[in-house]
Amino acid sequence: MSPFTPDRAGSVAALGEERLIAAIRRWLGDTSPRAPFGIGDDCAVVPSTGRPMLITTDPVIHGRHFDDSVPPRAVGAKLLKRNLSDIAAMGGRPVAAVISLALAADTDRRWLHAFYLGLAATARKFGVKIVGGDITQAPAGFLGAFLTLHGEAATERIVTRSGARAGDRLFVTGRLGGSLLGHHHRFTPRLAEGAWLAARPEVRAMMDVSDGLAKDLHALTPAGLVPALRPETIPISAAARRCAAQTRQAPLWHALGDGEDYELLVVVRATADAAALAAAWRRRFPGLPLTEIGTFVRHGRLPAGAVDWSGYSGYEHLR
Amino acid sequence: MSPFTPDRAGSVAALGEERLIAAIRRWLGDTSPRAPFGIGDDCAVVPSTGRPMLITTDPVIHGRHFDDSVPPRAVGAKLLKRNLSDIAAMGGRPVAAVISLALAADTDRRWLHAFYLGLAATARKFGVKIVGGDITQAPAGFLGAFLTLHGEAATERIVTRSGARAGDRLFVTGRLGGSLLGHHHRFTPRLAEGAWLAARPEVRAMMDVSDGLAKDLHALTPAGLVPALRPETIPISAAARRCAAQTRQAPLWHALGDGEDYELLVVVRATADAAALAAAWRRRFPGLPLTEIGTFVRHGRLPAGAVDWSGYSGYEHLR
Repeated sequence: MSPFTPDRAGSVAALGEERLIAAIRRWLGDTSPRAPFGIGDDCAVVPSTGRPMLITTDPVIHGRHFDDSVPPRAVGAKLLKRNLSDIAAMGGRPVAAVISLALAADTDRRWLHAFYLGLAATARKFGVKIVGGDITQAPAGFLGAFLTLHGEAATERIVTRSGARAGDRLFVTGRLGGSLLGHHHRFTPRLAEGAWLAARPEVRAMMDVSDGLAKDLHALTPAGLVPALRPETIPISAAARRCAAQTRQAPLWHALGDGEDYELLVVVRATADAAALAAAWRRRFPGLPLTEIGTFVRHGRLPAGAVDWSGYSGYEHLR
Repeated sequence: MSPFTPDRAGSVAALGEERLIAAIRRWLGDTSPRAPFGIGDDCAVVPSTGRPMLITTDPVIHGRHFDDSVPPRAVGAKLLKRNLSDIAAMGGRPVAAVISLALAADTDRRWLHAFYLGLAATARKFGVKIVGGDITQAPAGFLGAFLTLHGEAATERIVTRSGARAGDRLFVTGRLGGSLLGHHHRFTPRLAEGAWLAARPEVRAMMDVSDGLAKDLHALTPAGLVPALRPETIPISAAARRCAAQTRQAPLWHALGDGEDYELLVVVRATADAAALAAAWRRRFPGLPLTEIGTFVRHGRLPAGAVDWSGYSGYEHLR
């Protein structure tokens, strides 16, 4: 479904700003608390829990993060899930979001309605309140929704991307690649998994895979080290294999570079009992693989059979 | 200056995403703290102060909030100041911001550099850290920057828009109207004033004037009451008079409806000693008028000579 309509009566412009905001609050239902916690004052007022706050921001833009083939409910869900994945990657719990909408005057109200229903369903599922936002008219043909999500540590601990040392092991949740076939909006943010991992002392660093394993790995790799990946261990998704059949690339190529996997990349201490960690994981998350894919080694010490993909740049956002 | 360049070598696309992010961190200088507080991890980690958090979000979009006549430094400053004004309106103190950029591939790096210098100068002036963000490529011709600002109460008290009662008096800071002649990006957010007013027990409710006095008044007016304004008391700016000379509208019309004043609208208890408040204000803020412009009265009790502008809708964001 296109987000735009040639029927002026069905557009957001025909509704006008005030009635549109009232409609959005209806669509959000119980995920939209009353002001001043929620929409309706100059700022949203969010009670403090005393824990450090996590803040992340990611948009969805028509033609970039979704097209007319993605149902508007899935677009609304994706907007929130992209941000939830960043909270998951630090072992956090989501709390509240604000959304800045920039939309052309001919944006279809039915599209926007479905978008907000998808957003609200996801917010409900993960316990997020939508506490504020802004709506601005954009030039013809443009539709973007810019969400900022606030969370807090789920345990005493926040896990960052830094801290990997030589000998540390690298794990990844789920399977990688082929996101374009639907996973890019159907994925589940790994919130329960991230909180569980952050509570394990063996876990040294963590991040989510959004730009593709090869590119994202870079951010986990301290100066002087290289990631030594074992190609045969990379968990390749069925979608990556289907993509490979079309593109005639190797399935591994898709697993490394497609991006939008929204899985967790986990650095585990060299000295940890990896078998005990894997067994505890399987008991807690029996449906989701946690796979060891390599180690961090000192520069120039790449073992035989291991590959350093950190030179591979993956998805380039600006071209 | 146009934000876009026909010279590919001078565009953000030629720089690429990683080098652009590195450049932005340089441009932000000391307003960009190290990760995990600042840019560089999945989320920004902001220490808790234990006070309630204030969150607001407002963008600047090319062709809507600025055009090629506005210097890029002023655009960067405006982006932050719009949001600071919302924090001021609740008596808050700003803390940290994240920015989501959506820009066409041919965005001029020099334009963006100046934009960030203006943003950083404003952040420094008001003690704000830029702690995270996102950059996404937008369709040709589009440039938007979506900022979410986090603050906290500056005193024990947060002042909301609600709470006005019959007999309460209405004050406004500064002078209104004609923002299009330059005030829309040259204004100063009333942070010191908002914090001072929030600490005064006489102040019952507050908001900032962004859409124009007539339209914004509505949000301060509880059901059953109407705002009774005295037209002769409305403080009209010199710019509103200059606009009026061109448009042949009354200067008052511009003061009521132009919007982007970013002044504070303040509800003071009926029983308060307004003369004492005014005297204390003049001592603290000698350069800025605080003007009584009317009262709230019960529906149907409009005094002679007073006008209820609450039917006037002001600026419509979607048309």
